[in-house]
Amino acid sequence: MSNNLLAGKKGVIFGALDDKSIATKVAERCVEEGAQIILTNAPVAMRFGEIQKLGERLNAPVIPADATSTEDLEKLFQDSMKALDGKIDFVLHSIGMSLNVRKKREYTDLNYEWMLKTFDISAVSFHKVMQTLWKMDAMSDWGSILALTYIAAQRTFPDYNEMAESKALLESFARSFGYHFGERNKVRVNTISQSPTKTTAGSGVKGFDEFFDYADKMSPLGNASADSCADYCVLMFSDFTRMVTMQNLYHDGGFSSMGMSPKVLEI
Amino acid sequence: MSNNLLAGKKGVIFGALDDKSIATKVAERCVEEGAQIILTNAPVAMRFGEIQKLGERLNAPVIPADATSTEDLEKLFQDSMKALDGKIDFVLHSIGMSLNVRKKREYTDLNYEWMLKTFDISAVSFHKVMQTLWKMDAMSDWGSILALTYIAAQRTFPDYNEMAESKALLESFARSFGYHFGERNKVRVNTISQSPTKTTAGSGVKGFDEFFDYADKMSPLGNASADSCADYCVLMFSDFTRMVTMQNLYHDGGFSSMGMSPKVLEI
Amino acid sequence: MSNNLLAGKKGVIFGALDDKSIATKVAERCVEEGAQIILTNAPVAMRFGEIQKLGERLNAPVIPADATSTEDLEKLFQDSMKALDGKIDFVLHSIGMSLNVRKKREYTDLNYEWMLKTFDISAVSFHKVMQTLWKMDAMSDWGSILALTYIAAQRTFPDYNEMAESKALLESFARSFGYHFGERNKVRVNTISQSPTKTTAGSGVKGFDEFFDYADKMSPLGNASADSCADYCVLMFSDFTRMVTMQNLYHDGGFSSMGMSPKVLEI
Amino acid sequence: MSNNLLAGKKGVIFGALDDKSIATKVAERCVEEGAQIILTNAPVAMRFGEIQKLGERLNAPVIPADATSTEDLEKLFQDSMKALDGKIDFVLHSIGMSLNVRKKREYTDLNYEWMLKTFDISAVSFHKVMQTLWKMDAMSDWGSILALTYIAAQRTFPDYNEMAESKALLESFARSFGYHFGERNKVRVNTISQSPTKTTAGSGVKGFDEFFDYADKMSPLGNASADSCADYCVLMFSDFTRMVTMQNLYHDGGFSSMGMSPKVLEI
Repeated sequence: MSNNLLAGKKGVIFGALDDKSIATKVAERCVEEGAQIILTNAPVAMRFGEIQKLGERLNAPVIPADATSTEDLEKLFQDSMKALDGKIDFVLHSIGMSLNVRKKREYTDLNYEWMLKTFDISAVSFHKVMQTLWKMDAMSDWGSILALTYIAAQRTFPDYNEMAESKALLESFARSFGYHFGERNKVRVNTISQSPTKTTAGSGVKGFDEFFDYADKMSPLGNASADSCADYCVLMFSDFTRMVTMQNLYHDGGFSSMGMSPKVLEI
Repeated sequence: MSNNLLAGKKGVIFGALDDKSIATKVAERCVEEGAQIILTNAPVAMRFGEIQKLGERLNAPVIPADATSTEDLEKLFQDSMKALDGKIDFVLHSIGMSLNVRKKREYTDLNYEWMLKTFDISAVSFHKVMQTLWKMDAMSDWGSILALTYIAAQRTFPDYNEMAESKALLESFARSFGYHFGERNKVRVNTISQSPTKTTAGSGVKGFDEFFDYADKMSPLGNASADSCADYCVLMFSDFTRMVTMQNLYHDGGFSSMGMSPKVLEI
Repeated sequence: MSNNLLAGKKGVIFGALDDKSIATKVAERCVEEGAQIILTNAPVAMRFGEIQKLGERLNAPVIPADATSTEDLEKLFQDSMKALDGKIDFVLHSIGMSLNVRKKREYTDLNYEWMLKTFDISAVSFHKVMQTLWKMDAMSDWGSILALTYIAAQRTFPDYNEMAESKALLESFARSFGYHFGERNKVRVNTISQSPTKTTAGSGVKGFDEFFDYADKMSPLGNASADSCADYCVLMFSDFTRMVTMQNLYHDGGFSSMGMSPKVLEI
Repeated sequence: MSNNLLAGKKGVIFGALDDKSIATKVAERCVEEGAQIILTNAPVAMRFGEIQKLGERLNAPVIPADATSTEDLEKLFQDSMKALDGKIDFVLHSIGMSLNVRKKREYTDLNYEWMLKTFDISAVSFHKVMQTLWKMDAMSDWGSILALTYIAAQRTFPDYNEMAESKALLESFARSFGYHFGERNKVRVNTISQSPTKTTAGSGVKGFDEFFDYADKMSPLGNASADSCADYCVLMFSDFTRMVTMQNLYHDGGFSSMGMSPKVLEI
């Protein structure tokens, strides 16, 4: 079913890894809504071939790029504009990885080289994407740039570890660059703060399942799924949200506004 | 042009007064997007006949109701469900009026009877609307309730006077009732915090024009218009935003995230 | 033990009811720190005589006043300035009462006359206090006005009912009036958002004990006691906080910044 | 004049550079209030000898340490505990420097190596300080850790450049580590968000003077000075604030709660 919300629009989507990825759902919905897209991810994420299958299914070129490399990004956007035959209308940044989490380091025993690498991958990459687009003047006027984030940027979820800081950084980049892109190109930049989601990445976090259930109970509408997140992303790329910028938008079934739910106390 | 976002949906819209009203724009866009609607306003707001003309144009019944009267509201929703032949999918609350502002009382010299009346009209009416819908079980599952608000609920704009408190109250009602409606009916409740808008109501505020220009300069995308606000409201009524609830959503060209703009300093 | 933080300062304290009241602890600490104070409460709250005993103990005049009556407030501040022999340096507003809670009405079945009465008692009284002080020019320059609030103003705690809205209103009054008092008198106005506290008032809320334990577990430092709250209030009245205004200050052991605590999940 | 607020307490103060530094004022006030302190700064910041003079005046050992080096930090805290003859009660982090600002790079043309170095100096150093204290078990129970920050972490001030992100990161570290230190040691961690201040560091930011005046006009109490900030820091180290943690506290004359001031429009 399509509402034709993205007819004629051209986008680049970072971070589709496999069927469970939010970025995969976003890619599918964007195409359903009439957009033409480019898929990209780090070369290492492509080895299982899932993204190529997705690309074929969606008739979307797949261009590998390391989002921490400005050279890769330049090449990506050049190739994208060639393949799309024009400037870019929307971009999704769905990238996050913590070396310290992966290597099971506690928050009070972090390795700082890894921390900076985590920031580079999970947050600075977003600035790099935007700065590259900016310098190449690759965004259409009234375009839309979006990144996925999590409420750990505002409140403490101990198991989320240094990803809390990565997300705080990411959201700050959205605000700061949103100012510049808004003034020059009327381009908007926002973040969507999504419920815990059972993706391959999300599930890697310690105690994820218990926490997923807790958030589900705490949220009056339950946790938002990857599918509904994809719907919300489509809106943020459509012309219906042209005047929304520099915002962090909670897509979480109400979790962020709950202090305490009787359902949680009942347990 | 239509994206058919509200096909088959039924809504009630409070607060259309004349051509400049945001509620008028919302009504028009909802019908364009496939919804069937009811228009309502206080009997006194109907005397100029503009809302009747709008109703004819949109093929929408006009039902007068004083939103501070639970009896009027009960009758309104009964008649609405009859006219719409079913439960209600979405509601817009766009009501606000300050007696102390109208009578030019300073914030340090307020009349308290008027203040409570202001709260009743501008904010408690929103609770009354929701409580009436709740008791009548008049909302469809996964429906959407929305009210228009202003950033004076978070920060001080001295000329906005007691409307600051009215909006703080309104937003709190959205969160609190959003919990109950979410748990029982999967209904979401949100507020949209809109740029200063040149409506008949907005223009009544002291120093409005200077402030409008200031906000326009401060916002990287400029002030959001009533038309673009209507687009955003349509989204909030559509199925694309089912998991967004208890949120206050800034629709303001970036104003809320700006600390200071060089453009303002240049003056 | 005294640090002499309020030497020579004169204050008026609203809301001391009995030994458990936060206002009682604040009164005691203020006197220990060198202040001269007036105690006040509604005539009905005085019937048990506890406040008179407190007044004797602290050598503080007790002046009954209904904080919803501007006449009572005028008389209170006149008498206070006479008794204190000068203008007022600090004021504590610790007043809150919900008729709908007391009469066990659910949030979805509220009586609106009671709601407006609740707002008048719990929040508008704060504006009345400030407007009366303003008109009488009764505050010393660089004075401090403070009200006690609760995080239900920001997030939903269903059992807190219409007190959520009362506190949202109260905090908005602090910001708005803080602007005016700051510009004219360098007087600051703030709210302290306190942990759930086992006072006679707090304990009246449904499910209080379960919730108290939940908050205690969720807060890295545990719930803040009434005694520690009194310490924080003393600071806000002292000259050490002259430049803090229009703020809502969480005094809650960290609760407000927690997303989820492993301790809560363990249960 | 002293209120003896820090009698018997032992602290380490990072970031005193010269007479204008906020850290210098804090050091002076801490000693006045009865504390024994250690002064520290990067070796390069010591070359002008001002900090040594301050150390002599305050009878405080000066221990050079590069706050980005965990080895330096370990040595610093070991030497500090020896000199202070016991564990540490309070720590001030007042460190910030942006390479991209210093080298006049626009926000849309940043050098990423410099950016990561900026984060390391201005924010990660705070985590390093805390992790080192944690591992050495060097903080007294009920101790207090504080960092200075700026509202650019929440709202966009274009000239502040990548320091916006540094401060977002810093504040996130405070929340996250605040959880751990609270649970284990009842130690609190907070940030103070200070008005623009005419320090040697602050004045380096482009357009600082215009902005200083703008903020001064926008704030009902005017900009908070370095002296008043020192008072506020003393409070945060005193036992009066034991239950305040994981907070970002605005010390800004009301700036953060202002939407628009008539004074600014008048210009």
